[in-house]
Amino acid sequence: MATFYGIGVGPGDSELMTIKAVNTIKALDVLYAPKAHNDQPSVAEKIAAPYFSAQLTIKRRRFPMVKNLAEKQASWQAIAEEIVTDVQAGNEVGFITLGDASVYSTYSYLLDIIGNRISVETLAGISSYSQIAATISTPLMLDDELLEIIPATADETAIATAIDDNDNVVMMKISANLPLVYALLEKRNLLDHALIISNASMRTQQTVKLSEVDSTEKLPYFSTLLLKKTYAF
Amino acid sequence: MATFYGIGVGPGDSELMTIKAVNTIKALDVLYAPKAHNDQPSVAEKIAAPYFSAQLTIKRRRFPMVKNLAEKQASWQAIAEEIVTDVQAGNEVGFITLGDASVYSTYSYLLDIIGNRISVETLAGISSYSQIAATISTPLMLDDELLEIIPATADETAIATAIDDNDNVVMMKISANLPLVYALLEKRNLLDHALIISNASMRTQQTVKLSEVDSTEKLPYFSTLLLKKTYAF
Repeated sequence: MATFYGIGVGPGDSELMTIKAVNTIKALDVLYAPKAHNDQPSVAEKIAAPYFSAQLTIKRRRFPMVKNLAEKQASWQAIAEEIVTDVQAGNEVGFITLGDASVYSTYSYLLDIIGNRISVETLAGISSYSQIAATISTPLMLDDELLEIIPATADETAIATAIDDNDNVVMMKISANLPLVYALLEKRNLLDHALIISNASMRTQQTVKLSEVDSTEKLPYFSTLLLKKTYAF
Repeated sequence: MATFYGIGVGPGDSELMTIKAVNTIKALDVLYAPKAHNDQPSVAEKIAAPYFSAQLTIKRRRFPMVKNLAEKQASWQAIAEEIVTDVQAGNEVGFITLGDASVYSTYSYLLDIIGNRISVETLAGISSYSQIAATISTPLMLDDELLEIIPATADETAIATAIDDNDNVVMMKISANLPLVYALLEKRNLLDHALIISNASMRTQQTVKLSEVDSTEKLPYFSTLLLKKTYAF
């Protein structure tokens, strides 16, 4: 039966894709991929490109990065309907997403619209926080430790609670809210326990201690903060 | 330079290993692997076995699953010293671990002992919770949602706080403490929002709604609970 595959391509290095993701992509008829600025291939597409077959049809679609929910939903709806049509016509169809397909991914909105109309399979990918821990050979958690994953765009109370109640905290999208997070950690004497990794596993990867960061500086978009209270970086 | 590789082999299906993990394993001289009961290969070793080269030396070592910390530390120390010796003799050496190498893994204790004496590289793997979300094609988190990961062996207050303060909670090792977690969720009318997945991506995988579980029943060892407050299973 023709199937729609949601495929996590991992954090950046094409070798960090799973064997299953690679084999699935090689056998696809149609691949939907986000369209970057200037109609360029997205980061996810560049990661997966080494595994595209010669007969693969790539359909780049724009996923608007706007605050207007109605505008986003209209675009997801249109793309989801295209996918359903392609699968119902007998095509093996994929959608690629950076990192893990189940972590803050547009793929989830498409799935929600598609529902049970066609066969769907989700392929997990290495998440950015998993790769960050690997990059610095430091555990995310050990023993009975807790890990909280929170976007830095959450409200201040949620961020403060996450910091206070956990041994380890991953803050995604830290570039969107660095001054607030910096102030919360400075107040708690935790600057030495936090590291920021940008573009993990990509050629432009950089790692910097939070204590050495100017909190007003502009970080790369794909930056994540790792806080480990039991560990000084 | 000869290197020690800590390799996450993912949750169970050999195809859920990364290309990088597979290529690294194929090029190893020596592989350290946990020894299961009756000196059988561990689950991690069975997952990686399709990629072993003919000349690979496998060194199965016992990692005692006991409460006595001194006994565990003595065994980690001895194994870590063996690894250092093998790498210093010029061998490419690996250690395999189920799921992600940075998530509740014995590998982290070895790393701690080995320190900076030899070159070390950690390879991320698909975690069990990532695979669980993929298996049921349901997001771990969306928008500004939070995710907490906690072992069910944590104390009751920590578990209750995790449930109360988060949108999504992953409880690892749920088989060790099901009655308590069941009672906490029942009291909060959250039984319908929790699912237990056992042996994710293995042949023996099973998925069951918490509301349909007898809280006194013995679950498989590799069982994880996923709580999603915004979602009824």
